[in-house]
Amino acid sequence: MSEFLKKLEATIAERAGADAASSYVAKLNTKGLDAILKKLGEEATETVIAAKSGDKAAVVYESADLLFHLLVLLQHQGLSLDDVIAELQRRDGVSGIAEKNARTS
Amino acid sequence: MSEFLKKLEATIAERAGADAASSYVAKLNTKGLDAILKKLGEEATETVIAAKSGDKAAVVYESADLLFHLLVLLQHQGLSLDDVIAELQRRDGVSGIAEKNARTS
Amino acid sequence: MSEFLKKLEATIAERAGADAASSYVAKLNTKGLDAILKKLGEEATETVIAAKSGDKAAVVYESADLLFHLLVLLQHQGLSLDDVIAELQRRDGVSGIAEKNARTS
Amino acid sequence: MSEFLKKLEATIAERAGADAASSYVAKLNTKGLDAILKKLGEEATETVIAAKSGDKAAVVYESADLLFHLLVLLQHQGLSLDDVIAELQRRDGVSGIAEKNARTS
Repeated sequence: MSEFLKKLEATIAERAGADAASSYVAKLNTKGLDAILKKLGEEATETVIAAKSGDKAAVVYESADLLFHLLVLLQHQGLSLDDVIAELQRRDGVSGIAEKNARTS
Repeated sequence: MSEFLKKLEATIAERAGADAASSYVAKLNTKGLDAILKKLGEEATETVIAAKSGDKAAVVYESADLLFHLLVLLQHQGLSLDDVIAELQRRDGVSGIAEKNARTS
Repeated sequence: MSEFLKKLEATIAERAGADAASSYVAKLNTKGLDAILKKLGEEATETVIAAKSGDKAAVVYESADLLFHLLVLLQHQGLSLDDVIAELQRRDGVSGIAEKNARTS
Repeated sequence: MSEFLKKLEATIAERAGADAASSYVAKLNTKGLDAILKKLGEEATETVIAAKSGDKAAVVYESADLLFHLLVLLQHQGLSLDDVIAELQRRDGVSGIAEKNARTS
């Protein structure tokens, strides 16, 4: 999976600065942070609705939208999925992800 | 990044059926779908708040929480991150992720 | 405030069954529950973004959108704002809203 | 309904400055805006989950939580429910709430 997510991140970074008329990612970046966050919230709600509908194809579809917009947000913030993975690894390294989460969530 | 996310998915799957007293993931799975979805919505909101606060470390932290709970949801639904990546690849294959999203979002 | 919220609820109920082409509320009801819930989640996220932006006019605007769509949801479910107020009164009656919330949230 | 919502707003305003140990509202205000917004997002998600569960009592319960935390947010921002109602009235006055929403949402 690594290859494709890295490629997708590169595509998003490339599109971020493109002509807003030709690219969805460029349009979102032109609108700015609030527009990106609005989409993130929207896709999270749609993932919840899909799961409650018991529609697995919709869960996959909305999860893809959610992950995609998370990557758009990270790129907009000068961050990457590797930063997020490093944080997950750090937790795992300390005491196991489950225990870490039990303490902090 | 592939290696770690795959390992994390395996850990989540293993913990899902463990003793609820000893594992956060087991506890969430025992509570059921609504509890998992509640966490997903919560972490999405916290990611929005972190980004609006201009706190990049917090964006990484909350994005990690969001991605983690998305993996918990996928596992609970009998799905995997590979299913989500396959959907993103399908869009990319059709006509470029940006254009696909421009049409459907 | 009572008069107007009651009048707004009546307007929403009346529009719910109207021609979808002529009314936003009718269109939402035709699309169904998921569309209404999607809007509720969206407006909640926009309220969060407005508050973090420190833009009070935007907080009022987005709170109005949120309250409006909550009324649309209640109507769709055969419920009313009075049902919600009765629940808030019940909590207040038991032991004070603050204490009640401290125990259950 | 006016009477009770006004009374509830007054109670929230009074509690906002109280001892955090004795009041849920005081505790939330002491934690600050992010904590209030986190609760708002959480209650919106729980309202979505309740509606998708087809559990009307839960919709009422979560809507009460959502409305309550919206009042806490408005108070924290120096705003009131009357400001929100004035905005809804303004839309209604211009061209009917449904049409206004059709244009802006």
